[in-house]
Amino acid sequence: MKPPGPLSLNTITVKALSLAQCIEACARHGIPGIAPWRDVLQAMGTQAAAKHIRDAGLRVTGLCRGGMFTLGDRAAAIEDNRRAIEEAHAIGADCLVMVCGGLPQGSKDLPAAREIVREGLHAILPEARAAGVTLALEPLHPMTCADRSVLSTLGQALDLCDELGAGTGVAVDVYHVWWDPDLARQMARAKGRIAAFHVCDWKVPTADLVLDRGLPGEGVIDIPAIRAMAEASGWTGGVEVEILSSHWWAQDPEHVLREVKARHAFC
Amino acid sequence: MKPPGPLSLNTITVKALSLAQCIEACARHGIPGIAPWRDVLQAMGTQAAAKHIRDAGLRVTGLCRGGMFTLGDRAAAIEDNRRAIEEAHAIGADCLVMVCGGLPQGSKDLPAAREIVREGLHAILPEARAAGVTLALEPLHPMTCADRSVLSTLGQALDLCDELGAGTGVAVDVYHVWWDPDLARQMARAKGRIAAFHVCDWKVPTADLVLDRGLPGEGVIDIPAIRAMAEASGWTGGVEVEILSSHWWAQDPEHVLREVKARHAFC
Repeated sequence: MKPPGPLSLNTITVKALSLAQCIEACARHGIPGIAPWRDVLQAMGTQAAAKHIRDAGLRVTGLCRGGMFTLGDRAAAIEDNRRAIEEAHAIGADCLVMVCGGLPQGSKDLPAAREIVREGLHAILPEARAAGVTLALEPLHPMTCADRSVLSTLGQALDLCDELGAGTGVAVDVYHVWWDPDLARQMARAKGRIAAFHVCDWKVPTADLVLDRGLPGEGVIDIPAIRAMAEASGWTGGVEVEILSSHWWAQDPEHVLREVKARHAFC
Repeated sequence: MKPPGPLSLNTITVKALSLAQCIEACARHGIPGIAPWRDVLQAMGTQAAAKHIRDAGLRVTGLCRGGMFTLGDRAAAIEDNRRAIEEAHAIGADCLVMVCGGLPQGSKDLPAAREIVREGLHAILPEARAAGVTLALEPLHPMTCADRSVLSTLGQALDLCDELGAGTGVAVDVYHVWWDPDLARQMARAKGRIAAFHVCDWKVPTADLVLDRGLPGEGVIDIPAIRAMAEASGWTGGVEVEILSSHWWAQDPEHVLREVKARHAFC
């Protein structure tokens, strides 16, 4: 099997660092890609961040995140997504990663929530196309369905891409899709439409539904096998390491960055 | 919507009680069905339990559980499943619920684990047919894929039923399937093949991947909607309440039983 493509650092992995520190750390550790979250981007200022990232020669593999259409006021959510598209454009991100939102507060109507997501994506697609920003629909693990993402499988994401057309793609995070019995078929179906490829690992046991992800190699996901499926579908963009973990967040960020580098080989 | 069919008490819901106590409690609370786990059944003695359950006039909606083909020695797992089939037959259970097992220790090969499950089911099917015991394949929530069940979706379970044929069906637990974007289609496909219908609820937030299930009405699952799908597919067997919860296990079992009764209306 050929080695994994270039690394990218999703900034949530080293949550204690500012975006300026992340950019500097990437340059120093020889990590050629970066994917900021919006909070650290806004804290730095989008224009300043864009210049620093450009000066450091980093590829921006994505901006995290748009979506959350089902939370609070619909119109406000759509406006916020339009701002996210502008930010993604300003920093030259390969895509805007879309985490679409869970059930609205107090609702048990999952089909209705999925319809809200569909309508929200339609609403922002013109701006995304105009800005040349790909909306990367990220199916999240079904255990997040109630409170984070009613977009639950790669098949469901690709159905939306089929409907939405140009300007959309999928963000494949091995953590969210590894269990899927239909994965091989859907990864083949994703040909030419993979806009982001995220890695981390499923620990056994997993102590928390959100904040207990492992670094590549710490868990049971056959990451190279899923990467091979992505590459067979035309993916050449490398691997973005995105770790939400109270364990790793409590470590020295320099140690985490060395681990991220060392574990590239497990991807 | 018509009211839910008769209640059944899965014994794990009141883990502190012996099977004899569960049988007595069902009779006293007017719960007409019971579904024992094998540990409490064996502790009471299968023949004694069969007589007590019969004398109490309870329907046995299932025996929990067969499966676990991927753990430890394969041949031993298959022998143990054959004993489970005998026990299910002895107590007149509607089905043997199959929780098929996660990844083998140290393995990252999910397709291979699924093949072990498939072979295990083929191995025990003749005994199940001879005993007239339906193997109820239970897809478990994808968050249990690593350590409990590589059988992850209703569609995957029905594919296995298609292959295995007579003597097999599916156990539908709303907790495990509610998130599935393909649920309506698969529930229709399950027509005539639903062998068990389990209820509990998905709490927001969920604090533990195994032991934080809610009683019906405590969470966000639209249980009546899924029950209606089951009934449209021919299910007439009522609702079995199966709650794995460190919260509810810490309560007085009498209180829990009253809650189970009261929450029948949420099913």
